[in-house]
Amino acid sequence: MTQISLSRRLRRTPFSEGVEAAGVQAYTVYNHMLLPTVFRSVEEDYRHLKEAVQVWDVACERQVELRGPDASRLMQMLTPRDLRSMLPGQCYYVPIVDETGGMLNDPVAVKLSEDRWWVSIADSDLLYWIKGIANGWRLDVLVDEPDVSPLAVQGPRAEDLMAAVFGEAVRDVRFFRFGHFDFAGRDLVVARSGYSKQGGFEIYVEGGDIGMPLWNALMEAGQSMDVRAGCPNLIERIEGGLLSYGSDMTDDNTPHECGLGRFCDTQIAIGCVGRDALLRVAKEGPVQQIRPIAIDGPAVPICDQWWPVMAGGKRVGRISSAAWSPDFNTNVAIGMVRMTHWDAGTEITVQTPIGAQSARVMETFWI
Amino acid sequence: MTQISLSRRLRRTPFSEGVEAAGVQAYTVYNHMLLPTVFRSVEEDYRHLKEAVQVWDVACERQVELRGPDASRLMQMLTPRDLRSMLPGQCYYVPIVDETGGMLNDPVAVKLSEDRWWVSIADSDLLYWIKGIANGWRLDVLVDEPDVSPLAVQGPRAEDLMAAVFGEAVRDVRFFRFGHFDFAGRDLVVARSGYSKQGGFEIYVEGGDIGMPLWNALMEAGQSMDVRAGCPNLIERIEGGLLSYGSDMTDDNTPHECGLGRFCDTQIAIGCVGRDALLRVAKEGPVQQIRPIAIDGPAVPICDQWWPVMAGGKRVGRISSAAWSPDFNTNVAIGMVRMTHWDAGTEITVQTPIGAQSARVMETFWI
Repeated sequence: MTQISLSRRLRRTPFSEGVEAAGVQAYTVYNHMLLPTVFRSVEEDYRHLKEAVQVWDVACERQVELRGPDASRLMQMLTPRDLRSMLPGQCYYVPIVDETGGMLNDPVAVKLSEDRWWVSIADSDLLYWIKGIANGWRLDVLVDEPDVSPLAVQGPRAEDLMAAVFGEAVRDVRFFRFGHFDFAGRDLVVARSGYSKQGGFEIYVEGGDIGMPLWNALMEAGQSMDVRAGCPNLIERIEGGLLSYGSDMTDDNTPHECGLGRFCDTQIAIGCVGRDALLRVAKEGPVQQIRPIAIDGPAVPICDQWWPVMAGGKRVGRISSAAWSPDFNTNVAIGMVRMTHWDAGTEITVQTPIGAQSARVMETFWI
Repeated sequence: MTQISLSRRLRRTPFSEGVEAAGVQAYTVYNHMLLPTVFRSVEEDYRHLKEAVQVWDVACERQVELRGPDASRLMQMLTPRDLRSMLPGQCYYVPIVDETGGMLNDPVAVKLSEDRWWVSIADSDLLYWIKGIANGWRLDVLVDEPDVSPLAVQGPRAEDLMAAVFGEAVRDVRFFRFGHFDFAGRDLVVARSGYSKQGGFEIYVEGGDIGMPLWNALMEAGQSMDVRAGCPNLIERIEGGLLSYGSDMTDDNTPHECGLGRFCDTQIAIGCVGRDALLRVAKEGPVQQIRPIAIDGPAVPICDQWWPVMAGGKRVGRISSAAWSPDFNTNVAIGMVRMTHWDAGTEITVQTPIGAQSARVMETFWI
C-alpha cells in the first residue's frame, strides 16, 4: 500500500491525538480532513464494532451553519425534501441538488431553531454552493463553517457508554432526534445517529478545546465495555447499504437514482432550486438505480474505480463499493444498475481486477 | 508513516497507470483526486527536478468550464483582478474571493474565447461556488467540470522534451500564454506554466483516453534527457514561494494578506462580489501577510499543522509550510506574520515539534 503525505491542507482534528495514540494504521481524506479508516485491521475493527462499542473521530463531517431570518428558506432551496413539518430537535437526511437535480451532497440537516441550522456534510465543499446561492439570491442569512466536530459512539454498547458519560437521560433520545447534554460545563448537541447500523450517537463537539477531554472521558468510562477507537467500517457500511458520496453517487446522479426518492417531496418542495428538473424523474422514475449486489468468487480487492457490470455482452451498470463480508460469506457490493437488469435475482457479471465474476442483484442490503 | 486507504471517492486519473508503474511512494488528496507526492525521495526528486525534466500527473488541477454569453461577466464576478484587457490565449493567476473578500481558491484562469473559460483550480470545490453564483444571479452560462486533466512537464530540459513531442513551435509559447498543439490527432491547449520555478509547460489533456499514450510518448522521447515521473516538490515550491491553498491560506484570508495584492485591481474590478469588502484593505493594507521565513536548527519535520510564530512572548504569526533545503542549507518556510514583525531581518521564534527554534523574516523567497 501507498503512504499518505501529511500537510496542513489535510486538516487534523480535535481528536487526532487520541487517534494516533490508538495506533491508527490508515487514513482517507474527507472534506480536506483526516479520517481514520483502519486501526487493527478492517476485519478486526468490523467484528469489534458489531460486538462492543467504538469511539469514532468523524470531525470530517464538517458543519455548514445557516443563521438568520432566511435560514429556513435557504435550507428548503437546497433540498427536494419537504421541511415544513420539521421541528427543532430533529435531524433529517436531506439530498442536496443543483438546478439540474444532480446530487451535490447527502448531509444530515440538524434544525437547532427556526433561524439556525447545521448541515452535517458528506465529502464535498457544500459550504461553497450554499454561500453562492445565499449571495446570488440576496438572502438574509449568515453561512459559515463553525468550530463543531462530530464524535461518534457506535456499537451495541453505545447507549451504556453514553449514559456513563452524559447521564441516563441520553437513553431517551430517539433515532434522528437530538438533545442538549452537558460536558465539562459545555452544552453539547447529542443525536442518536451515525454511519453504521449498529446503533449509537453523534456528539457535535462545539469548541475543539474539549475534544481530547471528551475522547479521554469516553475511553475511561468504557474500559469495562471493551471500548476502542474505531472508524466507519467499509464492510459494515456496505452490508448496511450506507452510501458514500463520491463513491456510490456523484453530481451526475439524481436522488431517485440513488434510491433516495423517499426523501424527495418534489411536488410540494416549492423553492428547491432543483425542483423543476426533478419533477419528471419523480413521476416516471429513474432508468438506473442503486442496488445491493452479491459478487461470487474469492474476496475482491479494494474497489478504487468503478467496475463494469455486464449482461449479455453489454454494460448495464457499475460497482462503486465492494468488500468481502465474513458474516454473510460473500462479497457484498453497492452498484448502479440499469432498469433492464435491476430486479432482485437478476444474474449479472462484474469485471473485477481479479477477473469477471458472476454476481446477482439482491432484494435488500444485508441487515 | 501512515497509509492511504483507496476508494472510488479518491479519484484515479488518466495517468495513474504511469504513476504506479513509476513506483509512486506516497499520495496526497487534492480535489478528491490522487496527487503523487514522492517517487524516490523528496530530496532525490528535488535534485532531479532542478537538473533534468519531469512529467507530473496534476490531473487534480481540475477545470471548471464557463461557457455562454455571460461567461466573461461571471469570471469577473469571481475575482478582484481586472480582466478587461485579457485576450484569448492568455492565462491569469486570479485570486477568487467571496463577498467578504475571503479567498476561496487561487486558480489560473484560461481564456479560450470571449464566451469560454477554463478555471484551473487549487484544492477546493470552486465548481460549487461558481454554480451557486451563476444560479442565484440568473446568468446565461453553463458551468461544469469537463474531462480535462493537466499533465505538467517541468524542469530545465522541459522545452526540449516538449519540442520533441509537439514540434519546435512549442518553444515560442510565452510565459502564461498558451497555444494549440496536436497530439494523436487531438487539438490540445499547451501553456507555459506550472507549479515549480524550474520552467515548463502544462498540457490540458482533453479526453482521458489519450492520457497514457501522451504519458508514454513523453517518457519515450525523453529517455536521453533523463526524464522521470515527478510531482510538485515540497522543498522546491517553498523555496520558490509558491503558495498552497488550504495550507498557506484559507477563506479566512484576503488576497492582500497572501501577498496577492498585485493581482487585485479593487477600484476598477466592478462586478466582483468581494469588491466592496476589499476596498478598505486595498487602501490601508493588511495587518498580517505571507512572508518567507528561514528557521534555524536541524531539519524540521513535516508541517502538518500551523506552528506558532512568537516574539517577546506573544504570538505574532504562524508557519504553514516548511522543509529543509539542501541547496540553501537552512529550513525554508512560508508563514503569515503580523505587521509588527514582518520586516525583513526581524528575529522571531518558531514553535516546531522539535522545540522552539530561532528564525528570521527574509527579504525574498529563495529564487
